[in-house]
Amino acid sequence: MSKPKVVLAYSGGLDTSFCVKYLTKEKGLEVHALTVDTGGFTAAQLQAMEARAYELGATSFKAVDAVQDFYNRCIRYLVYGNVLRNNTYPLSVSAERMFQAWEVANYAKLIGANAVAHGSTGAGNDQVRFDIVFQILGEGLEIITPIRDLRLSRQEEIEYLQQNGFESNWEKAKYSINQGIWGTSVGGVETLTSHQSLPESAYPTQLTQNEPETVEIYFEKGELQAVNGQTFAHPVEAIQALQALAGPFAIGRDIHVGDTIIGIKGRVGFEAAAPLILLKAHHLLEKHVLTKWQQYWKEQLANWYGMLLHEGQFLDPVMRNIETFLEDTQANVTGKVFVELLPYRFELQGIESAFDLMNSSFGSYGEMNRAWTGEDVKGFTKILGNQSKIHNAINKIEH
Amino acid sequence: MSKPKVVLAYSGGLDTSFCVKYLTKEKGLEVHALTVDTGGFTAAQLQAMEARAYELGATSFKAVDAVQDFYNRCIRYLVYGNVLRNNTYPLSVSAERMFQAWEVANYAKLIGANAVAHGSTGAGNDQVRFDIVFQILGEGLEIITPIRDLRLSRQEEIEYLQQNGFESNWEKAKYSINQGIWGTSVGGVETLTSHQSLPESAYPTQLTQNEPETVEIYFEKGELQAVNGQTFAHPVEAIQALQALAGPFAIGRDIHVGDTIIGIKGRVGFEAAAPLILLKAHHLLEKHVLTKWQQYWKEQLANWYGMLLHEGQFLDPVMRNIETFLEDTQANVTGKVFVELLPYRFELQGIESAFDLMNSSFGSYGEMNRAWTGEDVKGFTKILGNQSKIHNAINKIEH
Amino acid sequence: MSKPKVVLAYSGGLDTSFCVKYLTKEKGLEVHALTVDTGGFTAAQLQAMEARAYELGATSFKAVDAVQDFYNRCIRYLVYGNVLRNNTYPLSVSAERMFQAWEVANYAKLIGANAVAHGSTGAGNDQVRFDIVFQILGEGLEIITPIRDLRLSRQEEIEYLQQNGFESNWEKAKYSINQGIWGTSVGGVETLTSHQSLPESAYPTQLTQNEPETVEIYFEKGELQAVNGQTFAHPVEAIQALQALAGPFAIGRDIHVGDTIIGIKGRVGFEAAAPLILLKAHHLLEKHVLTKWQQYWKEQLANWYGMLLHEGQFLDPVMRNIETFLEDTQANVTGKVFVELLPYRFELQGIESAFDLMNSSFGSYGEMNRAWTGEDVKGFTKILGNQSKIHNAINKIEH
Amino acid sequence: MSKPKVVLAYSGGLDTSFCVKYLTKEKGLEVHALTVDTGGFTAAQLQAMEARAYELGATSFKAVDAVQDFYNRCIRYLVYGNVLRNNTYPLSVSAERMFQAWEVANYAKLIGANAVAHGSTGAGNDQVRFDIVFQILGEGLEIITPIRDLRLSRQEEIEYLQQNGFESNWEKAKYSINQGIWGTSVGGVETLTSHQSLPESAYPTQLTQNEPETVEIYFEKGELQAVNGQTFAHPVEAIQALQALAGPFAIGRDIHVGDTIIGIKGRVGFEAAAPLILLKAHHLLEKHVLTKWQQYWKEQLANWYGMLLHEGQFLDPVMRNIETFLEDTQANVTGKVFVELLPYRFELQGIESAFDLMNSSFGSYGEMNRAWTGEDVKGFTKILGNQSKIHNAINKIEH
Repeated sequence: MSKPKVVLAYSGGLDTSFCVKYLTKEKGLEVHALTVDTGGFTAAQLQAMEARAYELGATSFKAVDAVQDFYNRCIRYLVYGNVLRNNTYPLSVSAERMFQAWEVANYAKLIGANAVAHGSTGAGNDQVRFDIVFQILGEGLEIITPIRDLRLSRQEEIEYLQQNGFESNWEKAKYSINQGIWGTSVGGVETLTSHQSLPESAYPTQLTQNEPETVEIYFEKGELQAVNGQTFAHPVEAIQALQALAGPFAIGRDIHVGDTIIGIKGRVGFEAAAPLILLKAHHLLEKHVLTKWQQYWKEQLANWYGMLLHEGQFLDPVMRNIETFLEDTQANVTGKVFVELLPYRFELQGIESAFDLMNSSFGSYGEMNRAWTGEDVKGFTKILGNQSKIHNAINKIEH
Repeated sequence: MSKPKVVLAYSGGLDTSFCVKYLTKEKGLEVHALTVDTGGFTAAQLQAMEARAYELGATSFKAVDAVQDFYNRCIRYLVYGNVLRNNTYPLSVSAERMFQAWEVANYAKLIGANAVAHGSTGAGNDQVRFDIVFQILGEGLEIITPIRDLRLSRQEEIEYLQQNGFESNWEKAKYSINQGIWGTSVGGVETLTSHQSLPESAYPTQLTQNEPETVEIYFEKGELQAVNGQTFAHPVEAIQALQALAGPFAIGRDIHVGDTIIGIKGRVGFEAAAPLILLKAHHLLEKHVLTKWQQYWKEQLANWYGMLLHEGQFLDPVMRNIETFLEDTQANVTGKVFVELLPYRFELQGIESAFDLMNSSFGSYGEMNRAWTGEDVKGFTKILGNQSKIHNAINKIEH
Repeated sequence: MSKPKVVLAYSGGLDTSFCVKYLTKEKGLEVHALTVDTGGFTAAQLQAMEARAYELGATSFKAVDAVQDFYNRCIRYLVYGNVLRNNTYPLSVSAERMFQAWEVANYAKLIGANAVAHGSTGAGNDQVRFDIVFQILGEGLEIITPIRDLRLSRQEEIEYLQQNGFESNWEKAKYSINQGIWGTSVGGVETLTSHQSLPESAYPTQLTQNEPETVEIYFEKGELQAVNGQTFAHPVEAIQALQALAGPFAIGRDIHVGDTIIGIKGRVGFEAAAPLILLKAHHLLEKHVLTKWQQYWKEQLANWYGMLLHEGQFLDPVMRNIETFLEDTQANVTGKVFVELLPYRFELQGIESAFDLMNSSFGSYGEMNRAWTGEDVKGFTKILGNQSKIHNAINKIEH
Repeated sequence: MSKPKVVLAYSGGLDTSFCVKYLTKEKGLEVHALTVDTGGFTAAQLQAMEARAYELGATSFKAVDAVQDFYNRCIRYLVYGNVLRNNTYPLSVSAERMFQAWEVANYAKLIGANAVAHGSTGAGNDQVRFDIVFQILGEGLEIITPIRDLRLSRQEEIEYLQQNGFESNWEKAKYSINQGIWGTSVGGVETLTSHQSLPESAYPTQLTQNEPETVEIYFEKGELQAVNGQTFAHPVEAIQALQALAGPFAIGRDIHVGDTIIGIKGRVGFEAAAPLILLKAHHLLEKHVLTKWQQYWKEQLANWYGMLLHEGQFLDPVMRNIETFLEDTQANVTGKVFVELLPYRFELQGIESAFDLMNSSFGSYGEMNRAWTGEDVKGFTKILGNQSKIHNAINKIEH
């Protein structure tokens, strides 16, 4: 009689390595390790992960390249919306998890698995993101979560693996690092306090560029299409090119302090050079080509989109409605943005766009008005102040 | 028979200097020059401004120190609300104008003037801010605006003053600069384009500090009370102390691109070291001590507050309601924030607060959950996903 | 030499009748009277209007049937959005004006007119709606507004027409009435006070049906498609059929109190049987087929849409973005709504829809839970209360 | 050795009657029945409830009169905010539950109980409201929920009570009815479908008044203070007086369709004559005395307040901040509202207030403008249309 099958969301780290061994040995399951690559792995890393999976007892290993799908179905809207959670964090990990869970659920149905598994602890957001997608899309699949259920510490996991003949240099990893196309998160030690920042050395990318450099980036209907004049077949490639230029400046580091889905506060470091530059450059371009109220409502909806994405609610249909809105606002978000890269920071120098509402023949701010007179503004102000004037007169307010 | 009296909002710059001469000579008015100091003038500057006013023909000159009043009635709420217009601009000038207009209207009523005057052009925001306050509070006062009515260029103003025997080095001023406690704006040349940034030399404060320095700032119920352990009698003094430390790092420079009240796009440079550090440090502290929904609604209301303030609607009673809300949210915003100052930038290192919702015994993000079990989160997620699950089941969506 | 041409937005009422005579005689203009029918005129009325226009001196008269265009480009979205201004008013007149101005501007360009004219006073919203559309779309066209410019009272207009040999029974019209597909407004006498309601007789449609009647209305993707099982070629026809059924019940009367664009408060009565039933029935259907957050964001955007429409800002591109959003939310808004018509009121009895999220096998409110256990809800609540619990513990609040 | 003590939230209905017997007999607990009266019980009913509690085995029975406290801490804000959930439901039950749970938790701590209990099923909102308050405020108290845990049907509960010698006419209660100061909810039979409305007979209050009657209600700073000229010591008494007048008209009946906290849709009937009249009259008064933006932001915050209250989040500190905001907006909400009561409906006739922004000398809507000229409005409109005009010109949109 064949063993029950489980598809494990596998990243090759300590938690999911533990799961392979534990599910195989203690639970007697046939473990199918699935790695969903959202831009975080090199070919060499994937090979090492595959080897480790088999070594630990997995029946199969499979890596799915989901990076373009991830961009098309999610990152694109984060750019349209200039989404930074709590005004800081590009939602690097939050967004990925949904897509990883999605692929795992689909794969489990494809191979006729009985269960899905993930290696999240019981104190973070990822457990909710995985669980909720499995709940909604993985009908009938059991959800197995050994680390959470056994309340294991990293030390206990390491000891279990050692006892089972699997040595690795886990101890060296003081920080839990998660890399993807939309940024790298760095958690541990200092981020568990409220008052300490991460040391320079905790960041995977180190400063190696000291000479300022100007980059010209080009958006077409809100999507990054070219960097320094070079056009790319897909925005993912353009993002990677921008990251290659900006990464060595150690740009885009910060610590996000946020509210987790489970109600506690959490803190996590990250580095995300290309995402930060992209979001800020896109926003600047929008300030020139969109009207005031377009910007206002984009911000409302985009922040909400970021919040629900962060909280695992990507499958609520309101998210599709918001995506439609955001895409509709991008019709004129086309043009160049000039960015200066400097050590640890960047400056936006300006934009150039055929849709720029500033370069008009109507007048220039503070200098010249061509389309109206001083009398027009007097009338405007008189009417604009009417309600406050009436309110003031009736209520005889003392100022 | 006595001449009609006019109170002129006077800053000693080209536009208002022109107004003194023009209103005196061409209009036959008795000009009372009123300077409302919102943190931008030294004693020496005020003396020079007084001398110039009399030289140009003013009947009286008066300088009102409005900086603490400005803080108490406005800046305080901008800090509570972390207000940055378009996510960039601390509203340095926007806020000041309202208070200057207010003082001018009050002074005009006090001395029994027939009119008020300001030196704004017809292409900016300031004309609306002055006009609207005069409309609402200056009942019966005529509003005189020579620069706007005559559509004068700076060159024409200079020539008129020269013809009237008043030479000055106006030409040197390529940039229009406005300084106050809440930042200094810099407009002209490059800011009239969409694609150029201001040269280093355009900024009044130059980089003179290269050695990183850590500052500890302390908030009490949302207000800055101490810097590096030194407590100040009034937050204005604390802001000035922070500015003295941070200014030499050339921190807080940027270019704001925004929608003017009159519907055109405008661009203006600014430097505002203390305001930027203060706003970001305050925001970080709030991320630790406020709940998710407190932060959410604060942001909604505060952005709106910033918008109406920017647009001259400070006297709408909704502004008082929002101020009450914002103040009410600050009960626990007490604690220290650690900031590292570096050339052109700063880093927030962390916070320390008795009200920190993160340092609890409930659990720590991603590591340990003490107040709930894995089963609790499973139940949570099951219920949380219910509506999307039902929606998905009924609509048989393909993923 | 030919006279300058003006296109007048003509409704056949006192104000625009005055304009025909005045513009022809006093201004020496060639007046082209354009009536834009948004559902308010019978063929007989249009004939009478035409006759009167020529009698008063118009060079041409033209009636444009804009009702379907008006529905397609505007009313449709008001239904999608359940838009009632200030929770009361279906925006009957506000919406029409934009389309009337639009047609006038286009016609003026078509016939090479020099000017456009409207008969609004200086104390209402309509002047702004006409002016703003003419400003934006009627480049180069002069805008002529005799009633506003001369500050004429109705009595003065009547006298002028009489002196020019044009007698009519204007005096009888105590109320200013404006009829269209989306409702009829009734203003005058009592609506100029704050405390009186309109008498029964002021409403054009009187109660003639006393027997309750049940109506079944069917929506397809948010649009009214059938009434009592009869399908219509265009929603406008379905609305007219519903109005024919509901009007005799004197349903949908109320008084709207609102803020005008010019800052004063205004009050206007209206009757709008079909619009009110339609909006409420549509809303009920949505409560069954949309998720909580879909409903939340629809309401935000739709209220804003109503506000900008009311205030003449229909041409801001954010309106197109909102329309796109609203349409996207309607994919599942398909089903029947059962409505009981009674004298002066109606009751919504219920709905039937294939997309009803309530009729699921998941559980029924308060009775039975099939897809989760009591333990699940306990876990849910534990996590849901986490943040308040932590806040409470840290702040030791006394309750 | 003494038995463990449990405080039961007791209403005398089937569910909580079952709980008394079950907890006493099967669980061996000392049951203390606490009835928290939020306006729903007569003295006679309370006596009967007490007798039944003791008959079923309770050790103690206590009734707490919480109606004024409930008003002061909650209903007051619902009135300030014109809160109707989903634009329909005055939140009658939602609000009460929080206060009942609160009292139960406090009483349990007072008498040193080991546990608290409630009789909610696993398919409704009330379980979450009780649980969450107990979680937050009842630290250390066990939460016991027999109906939910045993998944009992009403029939099973009846049989259990019968087997234990307790006969009652439970079967007659086709509908689950919950009465309080803020309305009476009616659930069962038809409300479990999507398409049926409740029959006339299901509503506790029947139509007995057919003659229209006008009522004058007076608000002082947003609170009901007088009805028909009679002033009351506390708003609760005024509400009861209004209910006595309006109830016999069978006013304020409807069916609420909403999203439950647990994600399913729910439907519940209610009758709430005084609350509906009060909310609508208050809203009308506000339309006259508040500015546009005051109304806008009140609506945003009040709807959110209603949502969190409904969802058991009353203890989130943002609720206190919103209450502060709402109260601050009521400074001028003082005046009379004239209401006509008719069978099944009411009409608002108008208002009278010293703070009415409409009755000003500035102008009257559509008729006369005294504080501005036609030229002022032309200028206003020109500037107001600037951004759309520029957008249109640059994007060459075809209309």
